Amino acid sequence: MRDFTKSHEWLSINTATVKKQWSLDKIIDECAKRNIRAISPWRDQVAAVGIDKVAKQLRAHSMQLSGYCRGGFFPAVDAKGIGAAYDDNRRAIDEAKTLNAPCLVLVVGSLPGALQGKALYTDIQLARTQVYDGIQKALEYAVEIGIPLAIEPLHPMQAAERACVNTLEQALDICDALDPQRKGRLGVALDVYHTWWDPKLKQQIQRAGKDRLMAFHVCDWLTPTRDLLNDRGMMGDGVIEIRKIRGWVESAGYCQFSEVEIFSDQDWWDRPGEEVLDTCISRHCSSV
Amino acid sequence: MRDFTKSHEWLSINTATVKKQWSLDKIIDECAKRNIRAISPWRDQVAAVGIDKVAKQLRAHSMQLSGYCRGGFFPAVDAKGIGAAYDDNRRAIDEAKTLNAPCLVLVVGSLPGALQGKALYTDIQLARTQVYDGIQKALEYAVEIGIPLAIEPLHPMQAAERACVNTLEQALDICDALDPQRKGRLGVALDVYHTWWDPKLKQQIQRAGKDRLMAFHVCDWLTPTRDLLNDRGMMGDGVIEIRKIRGWVESAGYCQFSEVEIFSDQDWWDRPGEEVLDTCISRHCSSV
Repeated sequence: MRDFTKSHEWLSINTATVKKQWSLDKIIDECAKRNIRAISPWRDQVAAVGIDKVAKQLRAHSMQLSGYCRGGFFPAVDAKGIGAAYDDNRRAIDEAKTLNAPCLVLVVGSLPGALQGKALYTDIQLARTQVYDGIQKALEYAVEIGIPLAIEPLHPMQAAERACVNTLEQALDICDALDPQRKGRLGVALDVYHTWWDPKLKQQIQRAGKDRLMAFHVCDWLTPTRDLLNDRGMMGDGVIEIRKIRGWVESAGYCQFSEVEIFSDQDWWDRPGEEVLDTCISRHCSSV
Repeated sequence: MRDFTKSHEWLSINTATVKKQWSLDKIIDECAKRNIRAISPWRDQVAAVGIDKVAKQLRAHSMQLSGYCRGGFFPAVDAKGIGAAYDDNRRAIDEAKTLNAPCLVLVVGSLPGALQGKALYTDIQLARTQVYDGIQKALEYAVEIGIPLAIEPLHPMQAAERACVNTLEQALDICDALDPQRKGRLGVALDVYHTWWDPKLKQQIQRAGKDRLMAFHVCDWLTPTRDLLNDRGMMGDGVIEIRKIRGWVESAGYCQFSEVEIFSDQDWWDRPGEEVLDTCISRHCSSV
C-alpha cells in the first residue's frame, strides 16, 4: 500500500469541492500552486470557462484529470428523452476526450422527474433497464472515441433522484454483462461516501480488480448527517475507514489518484478556498 | 395476493406514527374506535403508561400486536456495555411476552456513540461481529421465553448510528447462520422504506420465505427527503412501489399485518392524530 503520509502526489481535487468559492480557471491555478497534480472537473464548470481554455490551462500546468464529471442520467419517459440523454452523453464523451480524461464518470440517473420533486414513473426496475440500455449504447460511442466509462454506484439514499445503481455489486454486474472480456473500457468509480456501509464492499472490490477500478473518491460520513446531498465531511472528520478501504482498493491493483469530492453547503463551501485545499492536502496525508 | 382495497383488517399501526399527538393508551383507544386490529408499540410508550395497564387495555379491545419495538443496539466499547445491552434485550423480550407480541423487532445498533454524535470506534466490521454475537446470545433467552426475534435491516443512511445490518441479504445471512433449521425463532422485519432501493430485494424476499418474514412495515419515500430520520411519507405520497413489494412478500408466504410506521416531524406529527389514523386507513386501501 502506498504511503500517503509524506506527500500528496496522488491527491486529486474534484472541483465541486470548491465550486462555490472559485471558477474552474482559478481552481486550476490554486491547485497548481499547491503541486496538486490532478483534478476532476464538472461539465458546467468547464463550460463556464470554455473547454479549449481549460484544456490549454491544464496543459500549461501539466495537470492531469482523474476523471470527468459526468455522464449518465439515462432514464426518461419517452424515446425523445432517451435520445436526448444519449446525445448528451456523446457530448460528455467528446469533452472528456478533449480534456484527456482517463474516464467519464457516470451518475446513471433513476426515476425521471424525481430530482425535480415529482417522479414521472416509479418503476425502478424500468429505470434500471433504461440505464443498462443507455450504458450499452453510450459505450459503443465511448469505445470509438477511446474514453472508458466508469459507473459510480451512488448511496441508496440517492436511489430515487440520481442513480438506481446503488451497490458496487450491481455496478459490476453491469460491467460483466456489457464488457465480459474486461477490455478496460467499462468500470466503476468507487466513492467511499456511497459505499462504506456495504457489508460486501471488500469482497466486491476484490471482484472488481484493477481493470474495473477506474477512480477512487474520498470524503467522510458525518454523524449526524444533516442533508442527504450536501453534508459530506472532510476526511478524518467522520466514521469512514478510508485508509482501510484504500488498502482493499490497492490490493486489488488500483494505483491512481485519490480524488477528494466534498459537497458541503453548511461548512466547507463557506470557507476560503485556500483553506479548503490546504486542508485537503493535510488530510490526504493524515486520513487517506 | 390479498385484496386490501375494501377493508383494513390487515392494517397495523406502529405507534410511533402518532407518538407526538397521543400517549399509548389514547392511541389504543383511537385505533380500536376505527376497527384497527393491531398495533406495534415502542417500549418508551409502553413504559409511560405502564405495561400491565397496556396489556389489560389490549385484551379489553381484543387488539393484537404486529411486533414490539424494539430490542437491539448490541455494540459497545467494553464488556460492561455489551452486558448492559444483553440485559436490556432480556427485558425487552420479557415485555414482548407480557404483551403477547408475535416478535421483538431488533434495530441492531452500530458504532457506539455515533448516535450521540461521536463514534467511540469506527470499525464497522467489529460492530457487525458484536451484533452477531449479541443476537446469538439474546436468541437463547428469546427461545426460552418463546419470543421470535425479527432483525430489521435499516437503510444504509442509518449505518453509522442505528444499524449495521443494512440489506435483507445481510440479515438473512445472520438468520441462516444462527437458525439454519428455520425453526421460526429468528427472522426479519421488512420495512419498504429501508429496502425499496435494493436491486436484490425481490430475490432476497423469495429467499426469506414465510419462516423468516415476521413483519412488514410500510410508509413512503419522499422526493426530496429533507431529513435522514424523520421525513417519511404517507403511503402513496412517494416513490415506493408498495403494492408490488407486498406482492413479493405474499408470494413468499407472508400473510400477516401491514404495519404503518411514519416518522414525520415536518408533516404528519404536526397533524391531528385522528386525521393521521384516518389517512392511514384510506391509504392502506388505496396504496398498500
